Amino acid sequence: MLRARIAATAAYQAGTPRTTAELAIASAQTRSIDELQRMIGIDSRHFADAGETVASQAAVVVQLALDKAGIAPCDVKRLILTNSTGFDMMCPATSNVVLDILGMDGTCGCLDINNACVGFLSGLDYAARMVHTGISPVVVVASELGSQHIRPDDPRPYLIFGDAAAAAVLTEPEAGAHVGFSASHFGNYGKYRESVVMYHASLTGQRETLQFLKPGKEIAKLAVLGLRTVADDIFAQSGLNWDAVDWVVPHQPNGTMLKDIADLFGISTEKLVPMVQYVGNVGSASTAVGLAELYRTRTVTSGQTILLIGVGGGLSYGGLLYHVG
Amino acid sequence: MLRARIAATAAYQAGTPRTTAELAIASAQTRSIDELQRMIGIDSRHFADAGETVASQAAVVVQLALDKAGIAPCDVKRLILTNSTGFDMMCPATSNVVLDILGMDGTCGCLDINNACVGFLSGLDYAARMVHTGISPVVVVASELGSQHIRPDDPRPYLIFGDAAAAAVLTEPEAGAHVGFSASHFGNYGKYRESVVMYHASLTGQRETLQFLKPGKEIAKLAVLGLRTVADDIFAQSGLNWDAVDWVVPHQPNGTMLKDIADLFGISTEKLVPMVQYVGNVGSASTAVGLAELYRTRTVTSGQTILLIGVGGGLSYGGLLYHVG
Repeated sequence: MLRARIAATAAYQAGTPRTTAELAIASAQTRSIDELQRMIGIDSRHFADAGETVASQAAVVVQLALDKAGIAPCDVKRLILTNSTGFDMMCPATSNVVLDILGMDGTCGCLDINNACVGFLSGLDYAARMVHTGISPVVVVASELGSQHIRPDDPRPYLIFGDAAAAAVLTEPEAGAHVGFSASHFGNYGKYRESVVMYHASLTGQRETLQFLKPGKEIAKLAVLGLRTVADDIFAQSGLNWDAVDWVVPHQPNGTMLKDIADLFGISTEKLVPMVQYVGNVGSASTAVGLAELYRTRTVTSGQTILLIGVGGGLSYGGLLYHVG
Repeated sequence: MLRARIAATAAYQAGTPRTTAELAIASAQTRSIDELQRMIGIDSRHFADAGETVASQAAVVVQLALDKAGIAPCDVKRLILTNSTGFDMMCPATSNVVLDILGMDGTCGCLDINNACVGFLSGLDYAARMVHTGISPVVVVASELGSQHIRPDDPRPYLIFGDAAAAAVLTEPEAGAHVGFSASHFGNYGKYRESVVMYHASLTGQRETLQFLKPGKEIAKLAVLGLRTVADDIFAQSGLNWDAVDWVVPHQPNGTMLKDIADLFGISTEKLVPMVQYVGNVGSASTAVGLAELYRTRTVTSGQTILLIGVGGGLSYGGLLYHVG
């Protein structure tokens, strides 16, 4: 067991809601709004205002999470920022800007992690291992501004992606408390990296945006393969099974895939907190927002277990089993 | 003590050597070659050939390091890739491509870390905590192709940056062996993020390159501040001092700063392996190449200690104290 406690979570969507109806008009869709909404399972998502950055959105949600945890920013030892679209800059790490905004300069170490939609779970894994080995508190924050990297004439990404950030604060548990991460699994499959890509504009010499380069059905099949691998290994490690899991926080790329995931594993919808319909696909922030929404809207109690599980570009897949303290 | 053993290291410079004399002509320098070489302390560096990528260079050096360790790629559990110029793509993580090249798909988890020049040390910190908590072997690889992001008409970066990759393989030590990382420190200071920057070309709408936006003397002062903080805290944690350190592997941004670092701490040059004169500033790969050069050119024996220490864009600073097993 990696002994680390989720002390607080928070989620935040910068900007204003944009309905699927609005975006359908902007991208000259011929399908009816009802049909589109049924296909993607997303009614609205936020698009941040001009001037908003990955760092500014992250800073808001880190402050919210730290307030809930009752921890001052200057007491945080490490901050991990995740993003899937190149952050705000290539160099230095964008997480430095979060430290500057929140007055954490010189008291905290930070770094940027990219593992596409699984980035937040990778960050959580690092944070849990830090806390377990004596570094506490640690903040993991996922901040995505997908709206900056989509365009109406490429409707598959345009109708799906949205903007959001979410954070988790991890602290050392009290002595003797049965709390922490009992199992985890992370894997990647680079051969399938073209499922969702955004190229490096300084290398290609043109503006780059998020693109889906494989058919949706092919991506869905790979997603199933990844999720099965994660769940099987986590249950093998922990000796538990789906019945013993109280809450499931899956990556929510769109409404259809969320339903497919629930059906695949036979998970009761009562164990899930669906939110993709008003958040959209928010990349690495999806599992982070899902976790925050779980704590905000449900009664999560000591002794329960939460399975965080995701699959995304790379192909990346990963998950952690958390025991609530 | 984080129990983890450096089982093997390797370094690799893609492409061909370019002398400072050559680059001085290309960038129309008016200073003499002797004066330039004295100012920057770099005689040559490699520029990779067209078609080389961060991932291809990383794959070469990971294979070299695994061969030395006698470990098959398919047995590696995690791979961490670090870079300071946006990797090969924004999404997914470029480390996926390394897995694909080396046949590690489906057997290894990977992720990309950016903490500018301190990235490799951040990766090493995560890797050490993974091995200590039961995930082994783990590979950390830094791969930088700075030559893709500099231009002759901006000579400060153009004359400094080079291309290189280096990797370290971490494994679980034998029971009872006194080996691992006894102390570490990581900090950032976002207010000084403009010391070295590369903006996001998809956000600015123009090709972006690495730029120094602060005077060299100001950056050098900040570097000293960062390095002092790291060393002081590592010695406070470990109860050791400079006399007890057998080898120092510092970030080597240029020859002048390397000399300043040695002078600042009164480190005997016999404890250092200077290599910036034929490698250039290779960002996060600098400490990785330095570590590989230490193992390749010196007799590193059980019971010795190695201080890895770096400062870079962000401002980022960090270090780890390693006990050789």
